[in-house]
Amino acid sequence: MPRYKLTLEYDGGPFCGWQRQADQASVQQALEEAVTAFCGESVTVQGAGRTDAGVHALGQVAHLDLAREVRIDTLRNALNYHLRPAPIVVLEAAAVADDFHARFSAQARHYRYRIVNRPAPLALERERAWFVPGRVDCEVMHEAASRLRGQHDFSSFRGAQCQARSPVKTLDSITVTRRGSEVEIGVKARSFLHHQVRNMVGTLKLIGQGKWPIDRIEEVLAARNRAAAGPTAPACGLYLVRVDYEPRSGSRRSG
Amino acid sequence: MPRYKLTLEYDGGPFCGWQRQADQASVQQALEEAVTAFCGESVTVQGAGRTDAGVHALGQVAHLDLAREVRIDTLRNALNYHLRPAPIVVLEAAAVADDFHARFSAQARHYRYRIVNRPAPLALERERAWFVPGRVDCEVMHEAASRLRGQHDFSSFRGAQCQARSPVKTLDSITVTRRGSEVEIGVKARSFLHHQVRNMVGTLKLIGQGKWPIDRIEEVLAARNRAAAGPTAPACGLYLVRVDYEPRSGSRRSG
Repeated sequence: MPRYKLTLEYDGGPFCGWQRQADQASVQQALEEAVTAFCGESVTVQGAGRTDAGVHALGQVAHLDLAREVRIDTLRNALNYHLRPAPIVVLEAAAVADDFHARFSAQARHYRYRIVNRPAPLALERERAWFVPGRVDCEVMHEAASRLRGQHDFSSFRGAQCQARSPVKTLDSITVTRRGSEVEIGVKARSFLHHQVRNMVGTLKLIGQGKWPIDRIEEVLAARNRAAAGPTAPACGLYLVRVDYEPRSGSRRSG
Repeated sequence: MPRYKLTLEYDGGPFCGWQRQADQASVQQALEEAVTAFCGESVTVQGAGRTDAGVHALGQVAHLDLAREVRIDTLRNALNYHLRPAPIVVLEAAAVADDFHARFSAQARHYRYRIVNRPAPLALERERAWFVPGRVDCEVMHEAASRLRGQHDFSSFRGAQCQARSPVKTLDSITVTRRGSEVEIGVKARSFLHHQVRNMVGTLKLIGQGKWPIDRIEEVLAARNRAAAGPTAPACGLYLVRVDYEPRSGSRRSG
């Protein structure tokens, strides 16, 4: 069966998250129903990252198998047609090899967390960023964040429902940058624990506000205890930006 | 009576536009009601630009008079409190001189028009930009746009309901730039005719798509006839970005 890779953008607001659930609207279900509407097949669409309720995607990746070859532009356009009016779009469809797996072939996942740091609440960016009034110091946040880089036991930032086998992850990069009132935390790792990014952001924000000293980040990490870290930052500020694969992984000669 | 200047951000989507109307929700009315809720006064809030239904603002400016002096942070926070849940926020409040007028003292208005140019429709930017599938050539659009700079009779880009005394306006600057799939048209002028920006964008888009040759922009301008130009671009892509005033205009020694 020919396998296809989809690159997806979505507004996570109306969904219970990526993963199909019994009685709530999920991104996965919306995609699977769009595939059925397009070609009559019942498929499972596998996603690279199981984003939580309210978390957005600029470049989620998923794969699915179809009974017959289809033109990739046809697949993209037909799914976009059938996805309406759900705020999910297929940015790109590609034909990939049978052994390509959106989740297991992924080499790295890039997330971005957006904070708007100004006295006035959000109008245009409502539900698209975390509104934090009261100045946060991004240089201090960046310095604290850099101490999380590398391989660590991230239990302190692990959500209660995390299903990962090990709490040890390698954080390849983490940066905190400011442009005007917008503060952006960018992270990259092969994989993350459940709620890891939002829990790191919630902790860094306390440090940026000066409520916690910068060295506390190392104490939090060393504690290996969720209670030691800050609260979970809201879902609406988090974006799955991109998923990396081996350069040649999944390429298929013809579609 | 002390006069205050407000800098505003809003999502134009839910409103019939800036201007108060009998039976529709307007930005002006929402602000006036917030002022009444805050201090019990019935005021008129004067805006610098009467944005149309669906047009957004990142930096609209307005002014109002109050019976008593208030602290500017108090004014901003109280209005933001009472504006909820409308997607309108006061970014900044400032005490200004009695002769400051948001509309008549304005030296220049800056607008931005956003196009997303890619095959896939919009998810996160829905109602925040104009979705244009099919490649548009931004360099050609920029060159065509540059021929609109300067003082001209802009009748060809004038909306039917325009109330300006003269169709002659001076377009100080107009640029078309691309970043990835995002195309941005930035314009600056002392003032604009009704629908002028959206009509210019609708025309430039046809040129960018290659449907009209670049030289047609001069024919359109010379025609002084609305029928000669392209269709009006959708409201949702337009943002009132900033309004400029004389550097010292309106400053008041104490608040």
